[in-house]
Amino acid sequence: MKIIIVGGNGTIGKKVSSHFAKKHEVIIGGRNSGDVKIDIADSKSIEAMYESTGKIDAVVCIAGEAKWAALDSMTEEDFYIGLKSKLMGQVNLVQIGQHHLNTGGSFTLTTGILADHPVLLTTSPAMVNGGIHSFVKAASLELRYGIRINVVSSGLVEDAIDKYETYFPGHNPIPMTKVINGYVKSVEGAGTGEIIRMYDNC
Amino acid sequence: MKIIIVGGNGTIGKKVSSHFAKKHEVIIGGRNSGDVKIDIADSKSIEAMYESTGKIDAVVCIAGEAKWAALDSMTEEDFYIGLKSKLMGQVNLVQIGQHHLNTGGSFTLTTGILADHPVLLTTSPAMVNGGIHSFVKAASLELRYGIRINVVSSGLVEDAIDKYETYFPGHNPIPMTKVINGYVKSVEGAGTGEIIRMYDNC
Repeated sequence: MKIIIVGGNGTIGKKVSSHFAKKHEVIIGGRNSGDVKIDIADSKSIEAMYESTGKIDAVVCIAGEAKWAALDSMTEEDFYIGLKSKLMGQVNLVQIGQHHLNTGGSFTLTTGILADHPVLLTTSPAMVNGGIHSFVKAASLELRYGIRINVVSSGLVEDAIDKYETYFPGHNPIPMTKVINGYVKSVEGAGTGEIIRMYDNC
Repeated sequence: MKIIIVGGNGTIGKKVSSHFAKKHEVIIGGRNSGDVKIDIADSKSIEAMYESTGKIDAVVCIAGEAKWAALDSMTEEDFYIGLKSKLMGQVNLVQIGQHHLNTGGSFTLTTGILADHPVLLTTSPAMVNGGIHSFVKAASLELRYGIRINVVSSGLVEDAIDKYETYFPGHNPIPMTKVINGYVKSVEGAGTGEIIRMYDNC
């Protein structure tokens, strides 16, 4: 398969990319590095990426930002950071990308445990994640030509413990091998409309 | 209690307003009718509403729009109709309103079954509903002074059958008395961070 991995040089992305590269042709997309430049918050950048890659079999997105801050300090503009990037960025990857995928291709988006189990400071990222979950279910009803769509939602991943553990008190870190398998299940499996939750509990 | 019901003259809103008016002081907010004018897509309009009403005990929102259309016909702007209105409109009602509620007050937002069980044409409304669900969970962790927040998610309601039944094949209509009780549970109960689902199955 020919697979684009947007955010393929990030904390999760680099492990996922290395895994898929063993068996597939992997094109890494990133804002500042990778094989193709892409800023998912800019739909023109998404269109340019697809034009440059030609037809593909799978799109994996492990990118997108949203502001972490206390609810009473969040401005309307702060919420729009996440809406434009991690939410509409992923929606546009699908909306534009559906015309660039081969029959039977797939989209795999990324959210996180905050959709179900938010922690302090996460009204915006939780909202974005929950929105993507429902979008994926709805989009799976309408995508044609056998194109599938799923989302991988991980808990606090092992490789991000140093950066995030203070925000997730009592959360059990998720091994990277388990996280990688979430993406493998989506890309190489047959399911669609699935929220692949990579955590047993918080 | 002094309760603002935004959208209190709508299909669900008028039944909910009539019920609460038996025991409480109800202020109906609406774009074109009601006791106070409000367009939730405009944060200045939200601020003006709260300034005019003074301190309140409960805010119920049964308003907000999102575009229904086939995924492959949706433009980016189409998605932003729902993001600005039903999503950020309800977020702003909370964000601005938290400073206008009495201690122990409550917010009750509205979504719908599409968050969990989308149907065709609902990528945008499903996404907005799912986003609100996770926002409510996250916001409940941070609101202070005993202020609670919940969301009522109804299935296809009895009073909307004529307009919507063709979009919801096989869905069992939800009696209005049951829907009203969702709002009563949120406003008069003690829970917070709850997604009050008013459907047993689709």
